[in-house]
Amino acid sequence: MRQKLLAEFIGTLFLLATVVGSGIMAENLSSGNVALALWGNTAATGAILVVLILAFAPISGAHFNPAVTLVFLAWGDIDRSTALAFIGIQIVGGIAGVLLAHAMFDVELFQASAKARTGVGQWISEGVATFGLLLSILGCLRYRPEAIPFSVGLYITAGYWFTASTSFANPAVTIARSMTNSFSGILATDVAAFIAAQLVGAFLALWLFKQFPAQEERQN
Amino acid sequence: MRQKLLAEFIGTLFLLATVVGSGIMAENLSSGNVALALWGNTAATGAILVVLILAFAPISGAHFNPAVTLVFLAWGDIDRSTALAFIGIQIVGGIAGVLLAHAMFDVELFQASAKARTGVGQWISEGVATFGLLLSILGCLRYRPEAIPFSVGLYITAGYWFTASTSFANPAVTIARSMTNSFSGILATDVAAFIAAQLVGAFLALWLFKQFPAQEERQN
Amino acid sequence: MRQKLLAEFIGTLFLLATVVGSGIMAENLSSGNVALALWGNTAATGAILVVLILAFAPISGAHFNPAVTLVFLAWGDIDRSTALAFIGIQIVGGIAGVLLAHAMFDVELFQASAKARTGVGQWISEGVATFGLLLSILGCLRYRPEAIPFSVGLYITAGYWFTASTSFANPAVTIARSMTNSFSGILATDVAAFIAAQLVGAFLALWLFKQFPAQEERQN
Amino acid sequence: MRQKLLAEFIGTLFLLATVVGSGIMAENLSSGNVALALWGNTAATGAILVVLILAFAPISGAHFNPAVTLVFLAWGDIDRSTALAFIGIQIVGGIAGVLLAHAMFDVELFQASAKARTGVGQWISEGVATFGLLLSILGCLRYRPEAIPFSVGLYITAGYWFTASTSFANPAVTIARSMTNSFSGILATDVAAFIAAQLVGAFLALWLFKQFPAQEERQN
Repeated sequence: MRQKLLAEFIGTLFLLATVVGSGIMAENLSSGNVALALWGNTAATGAILVVLILAFAPISGAHFNPAVTLVFLAWGDIDRSTALAFIGIQIVGGIAGVLLAHAMFDVELFQASAKARTGVGQWISEGVATFGLLLSILGCLRYRPEAIPFSVGLYITAGYWFTASTSFANPAVTIARSMTNSFSGILATDVAAFIAAQLVGAFLALWLFKQFPAQEERQN
Repeated sequence: MRQKLLAEFIGTLFLLATVVGSGIMAENLSSGNVALALWGNTAATGAILVVLILAFAPISGAHFNPAVTLVFLAWGDIDRSTALAFIGIQIVGGIAGVLLAHAMFDVELFQASAKARTGVGQWISEGVATFGLLLSILGCLRYRPEAIPFSVGLYITAGYWFTASTSFANPAVTIARSMTNSFSGILATDVAAFIAAQLVGAFLALWLFKQFPAQEERQN
Repeated sequence: MRQKLLAEFIGTLFLLATVVGSGIMAENLSSGNVALALWGNTAATGAILVVLILAFAPISGAHFNPAVTLVFLAWGDIDRSTALAFIGIQIVGGIAGVLLAHAMFDVELFQASAKARTGVGQWISEGVATFGLLLSILGCLRYRPEAIPFSVGLYITAGYWFTASTSFANPAVTIARSMTNSFSGILATDVAAFIAAQLVGAFLALWLFKQFPAQEERQN
Repeated sequence: MRQKLLAEFIGTLFLLATVVGSGIMAENLSSGNVALALWGNTAATGAILVVLILAFAPISGAHFNPAVTLVFLAWGDIDRSTALAFIGIQIVGGIAGVLLAHAMFDVELFQASAKARTGVGQWISEGVATFGLLLSILGCLRYRPEAIPFSVGLYITAGYWFTASTSFANPAVTIARSMTNSFSGILATDVAAFIAAQLVGAFLALWLFKQFPAQEERQN
């Protein structure tokens, strides 16, 4: 259990250090071209997710995400006390990752984001984003679990661009990103609605995959 | 059958939400630099295709494309009534995906594209694009079916750039994209010629792979 | 044999259609930003190489490149008459690919490049580029042949940027690219020196891998 | 042993030729847009790492990095005299790679960088960068060693953007990059602190993975 929590802590820490750090780097270098900044942010985040899931899946399952942990709890894959401990350490790890990014880029450690992210389009986006994230995991789980690191990394690569919210898709990430006033930040008062939308999307995906029984033969 | 249709519906929906959504995002952010906008559109589409094929290939074969379904019908892989149902649900799913993208980006749900895409160069492009798409599938089918998700995702990544039409290569995608007046749209009156060119390309690829008998030994 | 030649023809044709077509697209859209144009050209070429090698390696070995064919001839992998036929069809396929790209983009079918690519730095670059290309193939051949499509695609992705010549690394590609006066062209009188440098690089790589006997055990 | 050293020499040479060469190319073409230049540099470096590790892992383990070699020495994977020889040849190979990049781009062979890279943020960055690099290796070593080439290539892709120092993460690379006055250079007097930070990060990762005993079962 100590090992699993350590894996979830380090993994979520690196995930947030990458999201926030690459956002700062990209904004600093892109001369105001936001598409270019978003691409730097995208490539770094998609790539690190593959690495972190490869490294930590054998230890903890590599959730790094309370929405994923809750779906696996509902699926019966982990027990309630493990799930609670996972969610707690993911939030702590995420916040630590934001602080680490700030330390690397020599900016104030503790910040509050001023970037509003709200409205129906944003909430639909987070629901879709998290539905798709779970789809990228549950879709591989039964037939090709070894492809999950690549599936998730590529999913988030797409998600940064096809959802209006850039696919936070993760309550721990959302909370942590309220603590940086940089490219990837979110106003603290907009966090709760994002998390609600994420949980709706995650459980819709769980419902979907319960429609697909395991005895389906694999076609390709 | 209900499960297969559900898989084709969700898959084609996500494909179109990604093509149209990332086109809107990319155009909004790229300050008029069309190459940069096209890259955002490309990366998202190539990435989501890998994810969707990984997730749904074990359920329905992950066609998401009437041209692919018709080739598999001719190849004897599926029967006629399944093929017809697949094509119907792909078109419905594609249109739903466009509406979803519009909802996420807070724009009018129902639109008509004003972007003309016509002429011999465009039609040759769609023929080549769909020939290549089938090549990326049929070329892997016999020896490395597990590589198909990556082969298709990478093929479309290339196709956005090397064909003059940016490789629609899919009749359901073409119909659905006539319903968005954004970066990825196509004028409704230009749709039929695109689909005709796509079907010619798809069946030329089928002809090609019938030249390669299965008993060829694999070299690397 | 007819099947192998067909595979080499279609493969080299698609390779050149991609190199030249994506060069035209990228130059048209990039508003004079050459780095962005080169990236469009790079992503398309790297991606299509993975697809083409996945699709055609089981048929012909997926050379698409006289330098590769000559190294496999020296290595004893194919006989002299097959090698000669491969080289002939690769050149024909490459030229056909350039014409196809021109047809898709509605430009003159027959062109002559005016872009000078010459000098010691360029020749060293082509030697290094082709050495590295063979390294990406021979390095995988013994222990991980199934990784060759990805190794070659990623190698050329790097090669476009780290060599001063953008890594033609292929005599058939070099000849064909003299026939387009677009982004990826090369002056006809500069072709011979490029090919000479490529062959030197290719055979240096062959020499290198003869230093590594097969009985070495694999470490990771 | 001669073969291992040859593999480490050629591998580190290509790595540096790519880092420095793609930096020169990217800076030349990007019209002063530093984010775009960094992306060219990133894509080339990430891609070549996959290729070089695929090609040379079966021969030498594909370290190309004194920090990796020292961790494997501490881990008991190689003996002290091999480690010393590896480190020596990595430094020589790295410097040769810089000279090769300069030769390809027709610039002065011997240069000294004038680019200051110093300060606490940079040192934390190098510690984090090298910690993460070792995580990307050690995390795969036990359960999925065949994924290491992709894990390392993707890690460095992320590292260029999420650390303030762009993730040198390699003492041989750091020394060699002091010898180029181009995009990727580092002032010679800033090298020692970078190397110290890298070694701290590398051994922290070793400590972390000693917390994860081998008997943990794999979850996905």
